[in-house]
Amino acid sequence: MTLGESVPLDDRGLLLGDGLFETVLAVEGELVGLAAHLDRMAGGCAVLGLPPLDADLAGRLMRSALARIAAPRAAVRLTLTAGSGGRGLDRPEAPAVRLLATAAPSAKPVGPACLITSSVRRNEGSPAARLKTLSYLDSVLARAEARGQGADEALMLNSRGQAACAAAANLFWVREGRLFTPALDCGVLAGTMRARVLAVAAGAGVEAVEVRETPTGAEAMFITNSLIGVRAVSTLDGTIFGPSALVERLAEAIG
Amino acid sequence: MTLGESVPLDDRGLLLGDGLFETVLAVEGELVGLAAHLDRMAGGCAVLGLPPLDADLAGRLMRSALARIAAPRAAVRLTLTAGSGGRGLDRPEAPAVRLLATAAPSAKPVGPACLITSSVRRNEGSPAARLKTLSYLDSVLARAEARGQGADEALMLNSRGQAACAAAANLFWVREGRLFTPALDCGVLAGTMRARVLAVAAGAGVEAVEVRETPTGAEAMFITNSLIGVRAVSTLDGTIFGPSALVERLAEAIG
Repeated sequence: MTLGESVPLDDRGLLLGDGLFETVLAVEGELVGLAAHLDRMAGGCAVLGLPPLDADLAGRLMRSALARIAAPRAAVRLTLTAGSGGRGLDRPEAPAVRLLATAAPSAKPVGPACLITSSVRRNEGSPAARLKTLSYLDSVLARAEARGQGADEALMLNSRGQAACAAAANLFWVREGRLFTPALDCGVLAGTMRARVLAVAAGAGVEAVEVRETPTGAEAMFITNSLIGVRAVSTLDGTIFGPSALVERLAEAIG
Repeated sequence: MTLGESVPLDDRGLLLGDGLFETVLAVEGELVGLAAHLDRMAGGCAVLGLPPLDADLAGRLMRSALARIAAPRAAVRLTLTAGSGGRGLDRPEAPAVRLLATAAPSAKPVGPACLITSSVRRNEGSPAARLKTLSYLDSVLARAEARGQGADEALMLNSRGQAACAAAANLFWVREGRLFTPALDCGVLAGTMRARVLAVAAGAGVEAVEVRETPTGAEAMFITNSLIGVRAVSTLDGTIFGPSALVERLAEAIG
């Protein structure tokens, strides 16, 4: 359970995607919202049946990774694997998880994002769809599909055809002054930035609704995650969204 | 692209489950059906947008891993990761895949399997559901659920409620002398043993049907993969299946 430079070939994270991760923004050496990220990973450990997270160790590893790079703005990734061993799919009797941390400079993306709807569906029928797991291939494929069409990000629908999220971000849209975002049971990660946006909206008296539908009739749209904050969406499948005063206000409030 | 003892922390297989694997049975030092396994992995590389598989290197790595253990019956696992790097979900411009092989003794399971239906659904809305990818957490969770209920394996339904497969095996059932197995578009891996069973059945004049339904009315049931061959199912969610002459004939023919 230490920070190393490599993992052994019997690691279940490597072999089976059995584990979790968090990506935390660091600004001027400060890990933004660290407690919320560690809480989420701890919750994920419980869902996956893994031992409780050692949050102190996790924080130390992340700070140590961050200290080794010199960047005013960085992404610090914490990776937790289910550790070594077990026969095939079966975990060992007492899994000893492995914690790893890496850090890299991270510039904030400039300008709004172009989205396409991906053909890869989000699996709301698995608890893993609501967690940041090491089994992230569906998101990799959705993003690659978007890039292949010259877009920045992909909108992922779930198996019921409802909007879920972007490949690596939560999704919001605006209609008649109200804010809409897919409900978590659509197969959505409980994003820390999603929670902040909902809190900021509530504080500003903006009605926000968690829905199970497509963004039909959206007048504006944006995506959120820890690294990008609030990023406006300029197009979805060719439909153009103009600037929105509400989205700009939220982006400013989030910082 | 070599056999090592570890992978670096920037490996996309480790970080994102971006890659594929094969598990091949070795009997007395011979890799059974190796060509079919390598063909399947090569096909998976194409679907995932990865460079073509170096099948010669893969074979050499597997034989080298096998030579290091002394077991008359072994499981040799070939792991292909999308290699190092890229920013977040995005792969680097020219991914350099990483190939790894490990081997371990593998005893054939004794007796029939008890199955339960898992609450984790198979995502037929992703191409990954038809491949042996490193994002295998849904199967890990389904298997853990089965073990938690004292069963050996889990039946996974897809998002439409159709039978797909077991956590790490294909599924067949028997009704009125005919053989049934879920169609591949139900979110099913094209198992090499599944293909062999279908070929043996055809050769023996047994009608086999690929279906999109639940195994309602099944009189007998079995699961298949490279390591277990044909293994009878004794119970599914408490429903008991007696011995079946057809299943026994198929198990004998497969060996």
